[in-house]
Amino acid sequence: MRRVRFSVATSLDGYIAGPNGEIDWITMDPDIDFGSLMDSFDTALLGRKTYEMTWKQGGGGGMAGLHAFVFSHTLNQADCPGVVVSHSPSDTVQSLKSVKGKDIWLFGGGGLFKSFLELGLVDSVELAVIPILLGGGVPLLPPPASLARLELLGHRVYPKTGTVALTYTPVCNSFKPSPLRGPA
Amino acid sequence: MRRVRFSVATSLDGYIAGPNGEIDWITMDPDIDFGSLMDSFDTALLGRKTYEMTWKQGGGGGMAGLHAFVFSHTLNQADCPGVVVSHSPSDTVQSLKSVKGKDIWLFGGGGLFKSFLELGLVDSVELAVIPILLGGGVPLLPPPASLARLELLGHRVYPKTGTVALTYTPVCNSFKPSPLRGPA
Repeated sequence: MRRVRFSVATSLDGYIAGPNGEIDWITMDPDIDFGSLMDSFDTALLGRKTYEMTWKQGGGGGMAGLHAFVFSHTLNQADCPGVVVSHSPSDTVQSLKSVKGKDIWLFGGGGLFKSFLELGLVDSVELAVIPILLGGGVPLLPPPASLARLELLGHRVYPKTGTVALTYTPVCNSFKPSPLRGPA
Repeated sequence: MRRVRFSVATSLDGYIAGPNGEIDWITMDPDIDFGSLMDSFDTALLGRKTYEMTWKQGGGGGMAGLHAFVFSHTLNQADCPGVVVSHSPSDTVQSLKSVKGKDIWLFGGGGLFKSFLELGLVDSVELAVIPILLGGGVPLLPPPASLARLELLGHRVYPKTGTVALTYTPVCNSFKPSPLRGPA
C-alpha cells in the first residue's frame, strides 16, 4: 500500500523555515540520496499557501514529474492548471490509496500536516534534523498547541554535516487538538 | 576542564514544556542512566524565573547536592539562601572553570541558554528528543529569532521509548542575535 509521508528538513528547535521563509540554513548532506528519495514519490499534496508560494511560481518547483493535489476551499480548478484542487483530504487519500502507485509526499505546509495528523492520514513523519538552532520561524507544527505521539521507526546519522534523519509513524488516535493537560 | 552543558528533554518540534509548563509528556526511558548523568554534575546554573518556579519551591528540586548559581539583576543574595546570586555569567563561568570540579549543568531556562550561547559560554548541548509533537509551548530557544550553528558530537537511540539523545557543541562565534538573512 502506498504511504503518505511528511518528509521535511527541520532545525533542531523545530522550524522548517526562518521568520521570513529562509531555507538557506539547510545544509544538503552529500551522502543523502535525494534522487532515490524523490524517486520514491509520484504524488505531492500541498496546502494552498504552499502551492501559491512555491509550486505555482516554479511551475512545479523542479518536481514537474509529480502529480500534485492542492487542498483549498477557495481555489478554483480552472485557475490551477497542472494540479488537482481538492476540498477533502480524506477522500483524496482514500482515492489515491485505492490505486497502485508510488508513495505520496505530504509536501506541506505545516497547516496541512496538522490537518492530516488530525484526520489520521499521515503514515510517516520523516525529518532531516539540521544541526542549527533558529529561535523562531515557521514551525513544524503550527499553533495552537496540540499533541501527537509518534513511534520511532528508524534513524540515520550523516556525519559530514551532522544531519540526523529520523523516521516516525504517528501513534493511532493520539492526536489531541485541545490544549495539553496541566501539570500533575 | 569542566564543561558547561545544557542538558534537557525536548519534544520533536523543539519545546521543553507545554503551554502551561506541562512536562508530563516526557517519557523516562528505563535505559537512560539518570544517576550517572546527575553524578557528572556538581553545579547548576539557573535563570531567575527557573529558580523561582522550580528550584526555590522544591528546596533544590531533589538536586540539593548541587551548588546552584542564579543569574539575576533583581534578586538579592539575602533573599536566596542556599544559592549564589550572580550578575555576570562570564565572570561566574570563568571562576568555576578556574577550579577543579565536575561538569556544570546549564539548567535553564531558555533565556539563560540564549544568553550563554551569545556569550560563547556553552560547551555542550545535550537533547533527549521525545517522540512527540506539541505544536506550542516553551521553546528550547526563545524568540526573537537568532541563529546558532552546532556540530553533532554523538547520538544514542533508546528503543524502548524512541527517545533520541543528541549531543552537540556550538560552532564558535556562529551565534547571530539579529534576524536571519532573507531568501537568496
